[in-house]
Amino acid sequence: MHRSYPNFSFTVESECQEGTKARTGTVSTPHGLVQTPAFIFCATKAAIKGLSAETMKECGSQIILSNTYHLLVQPGGEMIEKMGGLQKATRWEGPMLTDSGGYQIFSMGHGSVGNEIKGRRGAEGGAEFAPSLVSISEKGARFKSYYDCSIKSLTPERSIEIQRQLGADLVVVLDECTPFHVDKDYTKSSMHRTHRWAMRSLREFIDGDDGTQALYGIIQGGVYPDLRNEAVEFVNKAPFFGIAVGGSLGADKATMHQVVSHTMANVRRDRPVHLLGIGGIADIFHGVRQGVDTFDCVHPTRLGRHGGALVKASFWTREQELEEERANQDAAAEAAAAATAEEEASIGGDTMAAGVGASKRKKRRRSGDVRKKRHPVVPREHVNLLKGRYREDHRVIDEDCGCPTCRGGYTRAYINHLGRAGELLGGMLVSQHNVFFMNELMTSIRTAIAEGRLAEEEDKWLAPGLRARDFHKRAAAEAAAAEAVKAAAGEESGESHH
Amino acid sequence: MHRSYPNFSFTVESECQEGTKARTGTVSTPHGLVQTPAFIFCATKAAIKGLSAETMKECGSQIILSNTYHLLVQPGGEMIEKMGGLQKATRWEGPMLTDSGGYQIFSMGHGSVGNEIKGRRGAEGGAEFAPSLVSISEKGARFKSYYDCSIKSLTPERSIEIQRQLGADLVVVLDECTPFHVDKDYTKSSMHRTHRWAMRSLREFIDGDDGTQALYGIIQGGVYPDLRNEAVEFVNKAPFFGIAVGGSLGADKATMHQVVSHTMANVRRDRPVHLLGIGGIADIFHGVRQGVDTFDCVHPTRLGRHGGALVKASFWTREQELEEERANQDAAAEAAAAATAEEEASIGGDTMAAGVGASKRKKRRRSGDVRKKRHPVVPREHVNLLKGRYREDHRVIDEDCGCPTCRGGYTRAYINHLGRAGELLGGMLVSQHNVFFMNELMTSIRTAIAEGRLAEEEDKWLAPGLRARDFHKRAAAEAAAAEAVKAAAGEESGESHH
Repeated sequence: MHRSYPNFSFTVESECQEGTKARTGTVSTPHGLVQTPAFIFCATKAAIKGLSAETMKECGSQIILSNTYHLLVQPGGEMIEKMGGLQKATRWEGPMLTDSGGYQIFSMGHGSVGNEIKGRRGAEGGAEFAPSLVSISEKGARFKSYYDCSIKSLTPERSIEIQRQLGADLVVVLDECTPFHVDKDYTKSSMHRTHRWAMRSLREFIDGDDGTQALYGIIQGGVYPDLRNEAVEFVNKAPFFGIAVGGSLGADKATMHQVVSHTMANVRRDRPVHLLGIGGIADIFHGVRQGVDTFDCVHPTRLGRHGGALVKASFWTREQELEEERANQDAAAEAAAAATAEEEASIGGDTMAAGVGASKRKKRRRSGDVRKKRHPVVPREHVNLLKGRYREDHRVIDEDCGCPTCRGGYTRAYINHLGRAGELLGGMLVSQHNVFFMNELMTSIRTAIAEGRLAEEEDKWLAPGLRARDFHKRAAAEAAAAEAVKAAAGEESGESHH
Repeated sequence: MHRSYPNFSFTVESECQEGTKARTGTVSTPHGLVQTPAFIFCATKAAIKGLSAETMKECGSQIILSNTYHLLVQPGGEMIEKMGGLQKATRWEGPMLTDSGGYQIFSMGHGSVGNEIKGRRGAEGGAEFAPSLVSISEKGARFKSYYDCSIKSLTPERSIEIQRQLGADLVVVLDECTPFHVDKDYTKSSMHRTHRWAMRSLREFIDGDDGTQALYGIIQGGVYPDLRNEAVEFVNKAPFFGIAVGGSLGADKATMHQVVSHTMANVRRDRPVHLLGIGGIADIFHGVRQGVDTFDCVHPTRLGRHGGALVKASFWTREQELEEERANQDAAAEAAAAATAEEEASIGGDTMAAGVGASKRKKRRRSGDVRKKRHPVVPREHVNLLKGRYREDHRVIDEDCGCPTCRGGYTRAYINHLGRAGELLGGMLVSQHNVFFMNELMTSIRTAIAEGRLAEEEDKWLAPGLRARDFHKRAAAEAAAAEAVKAAAGEESGESHH
């Protein structure tokens, strides 16, 4: 089976000079170009939550995606087709991707386990809906609609048909996404079925191809290196336009990075590669180094809706400086108060007066004259603007940021108020900051790759301790240490299987 | 007591040539000009729900208001002052008004009765919170905060102090707003206390006046003509910059129009007059004719959030034309089906075939080949885009509308989907349509007043049957008829008190 995608292309423009597989390129689609590495924002139900297409463009976005599962449940592919397709309906009019619907039906159907997929945890991974899988067979999957409780079925052919109705530029084969807790046997047989489904998806795609869409295959195989190798070989051979890395990437960040590195090792280099559902800054730097071209995740907009603003390394430097300044002020105030107390004591000439001075000092501290001890500043990839410490912070999120929120002069204190008051505008302001941030991040990564200074660039985006390459080094050192311990233990016990 | 407001002015520019008291003018404030008649949008908690300051400006808004009650509860006047005041915090930077906090504490505190105030009913009037009044005394009011359940007090002095911290251009005296179901005695004594509070508000205002704010008095008096007269006399005499018409305007639209007409009859003509909490299109036309200069209401944005789009008379003309067209199509399809059945019957030469034809026709009708009978089109001031009839309506709300939503090409079908999917964007798109609509309405009213064709202009905005002047005429005719009946009854029974 052969396939050409005449209205699509992927060209690699520059490759990293620092010994990684990072590269810049261009994915060309009928709805426009995507400069890679790129981030794809999630317009799950044909809308970015709380942001219009105009705002997305204003924030420099190149490409968005919608989810087949959600749209087949409501309003249905046929209805979107009648609207003229996703690009027209949403007024985005730019490049778009749709997934196959498999991810939601299978992985999210596993309930709480769905949160563990790809290392997501807690609130960030909280599913907004609970699709329920009824059955999986060779034919496809049956599930219960969360919208009207009707039983629906999704086969590889039907997924492609719906994605054709939706009309995105980049479409994806139906696959089963297994959570990390399933055993290797299940993962293996599921992967083989996924490969059969992929070929059926491809045939259905080719049958109806009118040149407006390009198909991505998906690499499954869970956390098992040999299965991943087999899946890579499969997608490398089949005539897909692009390749997506999917499935369980393990229960923690270390495993995720390992699985991505291992998987990317043998993926062919002439096709665009998409890493499904990953959106952390360090994870993106890690993925880019392994040769990943595009990423998607609800993270930036979901985080933003809840008051979490993505920030650069410089944010934490400033916070720490301010913290130090405050500590110095506190110490000075404390010293002044102590001096006053002593003075009062010497004037009064008795210990009672010193007592009064001390009580005044206590009172002053209670009333907030001397600043309260704050929680220490611990750098993360984002900052929660709804925290009490930002209630009287009259700075914008980042004075160097060019996003509509920061440039517009909306302060942390105002955003904090909006969050506390339950005003949607708060979430909208932080979401658009995050979207702009992600686009700026990807632009900077592209420039850095072209200019051979990706490691230097990472230092601007991630505070020490958060960097992917440090994490990687640390993991490698730990692994080496463990190996050494094991080797030493082996030597000691004299047990050698060689 | 005298007072000048050197940094504020109100100038009347043109008066209606059609025998009404409608007028155009300009309110000048330190944050800019407001061309009147104008609509004031509600940024209740220092944010228009779901719309940024930029969007409000883009939609042609001149002035917004915030509610003292909500802001004193959270984050507090002091906190807004630290943010640099409402204009700076919200990034609106234009003219603003704040109310005194009285309306929410008193009227909304009456629970379900709050919905009846000013003729609001059902979902539109659903309170988003439940403030609970603890006590009213001559000093002021005590109430329980809905935010943290703490007991707070609001006196005339405190209201002015908080409004100074908030920093809006136009501020308002503290008043008690009584619901329509309280008796005349209570309304009267409450009004007198409100007048004493108004004088205390004025004194407090003058004491701290730095020229950045101007004070509005409020006319109370419920639905009682003599009390309204007394209240009008009070505000006419006291040195307020502007005059607000507040309090209960009755339980229905007819009473509301009557109370407004009666109240406006003697209000002095050299001050801007604001009608509190009124935002229906017909009510605005009615108010404008009585000499009202500004209006405010949550209606346009609340309606929009729930999928209700404000529409002009032409919208219904088009809907009715389309309905007729569909009915014709249905009739034609029905005739064609009947012809086919007859033909089949004549070919078959027996009655069985005719039966088949009829059953096919039935089947065709069931399957939707012949369009289903739709609910008749009944004009209102707005249309609910979440209704099933708009699910496949691929037109924008109004093709002649220049708002970001209509101009941007967002269709009724897409908005319908967004509403059903629970996507915020749907409410945002309709809200911005409604804001633009209200501003366009007020601009058209100003032009029409200046050009002496207000009645003609009303026909563009309100479909027949919805017009305020028809309503007014109808009410007058009904009253005359009732009078005639009464007179006739009097004659018949021979009972005459003359």
